[in-house]
Amino acid sequence: MGLVTLLTDFGTADGYVGAMKGVILRIAPTTTIVDLAHDVPRHDLAHAAWALATSTLEFPAGTIHVCVVDPGVGGARAEVIARAGDQWYVAPDNGVLAYLDVEEAWRIVRGPDVSATFHGRDVFAPAAAALASGAPPPGAPYTLVGVRPFPAGCVVHIDQYGNLITDVPCGSAGTVTIAGRALPLVATYEDVAPGDLLAYRGSAGTVEIAVRGGDASRVLGLPRGEPVTLA
Amino acid sequence: MGLVTLLTDFGTADGYVGAMKGVILRIAPTTTIVDLAHDVPRHDLAHAAWALATSTLEFPAGTIHVCVVDPGVGGARAEVIARAGDQWYVAPDNGVLAYLDVEEAWRIVRGPDVSATFHGRDVFAPAAAALASGAPPPGAPYTLVGVRPFPAGCVVHIDQYGNLITDVPCGSAGTVTIAGRALPLVATYEDVAPGDLLAYRGSAGTVEIAVRGGDASRVLGLPRGEPVTLA
Amino acid sequence: MGLVTLLTDFGTADGYVGAMKGVILRIAPTTTIVDLAHDVPRHDLAHAAWALATSTLEFPAGTIHVCVVDPGVGGARAEVIARAGDQWYVAPDNGVLAYLDVEEAWRIVRGPDVSATFHGRDVFAPAAAALASGAPPPGAPYTLVGVRPFPAGCVVHIDQYGNLITDVPCGSAGTVTIAGRALPLVATYEDVAPGDLLAYRGSAGTVEIAVRGGDASRVLGLPRGEPVTLA
Repeated sequence: MGLVTLLTDFGTADGYVGAMKGVILRIAPTTTIVDLAHDVPRHDLAHAAWALATSTLEFPAGTIHVCVVDPGVGGARAEVIARAGDQWYVAPDNGVLAYLDVEEAWRIVRGPDVSATFHGRDVFAPAAAALASGAPPPGAPYTLVGVRPFPAGCVVHIDQYGNLITDVPCGSAGTVTIAGRALPLVATYEDVAPGDLLAYRGSAGTVEIAVRGGDASRVLGLPRGEPVTLA
Repeated sequence: MGLVTLLTDFGTADGYVGAMKGVILRIAPTTTIVDLAHDVPRHDLAHAAWALATSTLEFPAGTIHVCVVDPGVGGARAEVIARAGDQWYVAPDNGVLAYLDVEEAWRIVRGPDVSATFHGRDVFAPAAAALASGAPPPGAPYTLVGVRPFPAGCVVHIDQYGNLITDVPCGSAGTVTIAGRALPLVATYEDVAPGDLLAYRGSAGTVEIAVRGGDASRVLGLPRGEPVTLA
Repeated sequence: MGLVTLLTDFGTADGYVGAMKGVILRIAPTTTIVDLAHDVPRHDLAHAAWALATSTLEFPAGTIHVCVVDPGVGGARAEVIARAGDQWYVAPDNGVLAYLDVEEAWRIVRGPDVSATFHGRDVFAPAAAALASGAPPPGAPYTLVGVRPFPAGCVVHIDQYGNLITDVPCGSAGTVTIAGRALPLVATYEDVAPGDLLAYRGSAGTVEIAVRGGDASRVLGLPRGEPVTLA
């Protein structure tokens, strides 16, 4: 009766996501599997970390979230289980868990027959299925080494609409400064004219910058990591 | 035990679809969630309206379909629950319900803590979860104001194959006219040579125009809204 | 309580995948539906065949896999049910089953009201739902005519990372030759420098060729069907 979610950069053209689902359902047949997102840009740990943090906090207690964005597969990075509040995570320790408030972590004990390049199927899916079946996390506690991809106080994510999402906590008033531009906080898109830039409290509770009906990333031409202040 | 479907323009790279699923499952843990489509072109109400109408009519009685294509989020458009036959819809009242035979509608009563820009998570998901839990639709009846995006008798949708889909009811014989071209109705693709244009009764029971093995939209260069007749 | 998976080239912008899910759940309401992949390149039978074979073998016994990549819809190709080991398949007989070890097959008996162009909804979904409800396969045995898209010993699939996947069975040592290049087998990506080509035992147990952190398909410029040897 467990609930397992999947977030990967596998896309939805190949058989990789399907193979993970098959393994989970074979080991734990009553599991409910929920797709979070499979079009994370290839190997983009920062993108995955933000998407994971913002998509998983609302799930029921005990949900198991599997994140496989794993450019170092087959290499030295650890494979881990982590707990943040009442949510569980199964992922490589490469920074994809960096926006979560992880309280405990464990290193996954691999089964036999693990391929060198598809740990989604051979390591992470079995570990998630074991948790979903009620098994306790394996082995001794572990301390995560994966770190946040950007310093605090900057653009941390650009979503598919081109909105610039920051990690700057946001109240209800103030002026946002980015790359020399000053933008007063407004409540929502319709508070500015179509095509205009705006800053507002985004759905994660942090400062966001958008263009009404447009693409702020294209208009501003700024990368993730660009410093942002609210005063 | 409710069944909830999701149709959005959120794509599958960010955490938005996942956040909606988390909210639904937290409020109504036994809900089955089904993805309809998340790659609706951004803010394309006409596309969403046709996709919603053609994908949802076959579901079991009582299914709840959530459609979040919502360029006016945070603005004046209403947030509604609607019933068409034995299917239920949760959506902004901006035209995305326009191809359904809606019989009743209600305005959603918002809970607390609603963000200004992510009503998929904060308004529509909780409303769908409440319905899935067996709650009756809230409040007084409401009359939808969203209208069809195109006049009757034209191309209303272009699908990912480049097929031109019309709202012209289709029998089994006749000649279809579009932009000065006359196309006799045929039964299926293999009735014409590869690369040729054809008109036929599409899966929605209306006239469709395609190129066998090709892309009619590219070949004809015609937009949605182009008039079509069948005589 | 049946488990049905879906693999199509329908994309996730239109209503086609949703319509199939609606039909299955109307006929067999307790079915669990799992998405395998919907972004198979349009009409690409070879891609679909490989994705289907590599994504489905791990599922629980009795899982029903529906594959609708069907350029000949409405034409002469047969619509079939097939069994490979303890897995079931519902698909057109056009080669998409060619990498499976099919032991038995049957021709689908169509119901009434079948459109000419959307057999995913009107033929394959009802057939899968009937199987999921416990109905036996219909009619007399049938012999598949769909064949493998490439001769043995070559690149059979290029995944979204640009990895070249072959059908050449792979041990743990040897030299892979492709287009005049000789690549020693290594264990995993980190055994070569970033940007370098490597050959290794892929997750399907066959030879794969990749570029660490890059796109081997773009670097080599070789199509599917390119011969590969391991010696």
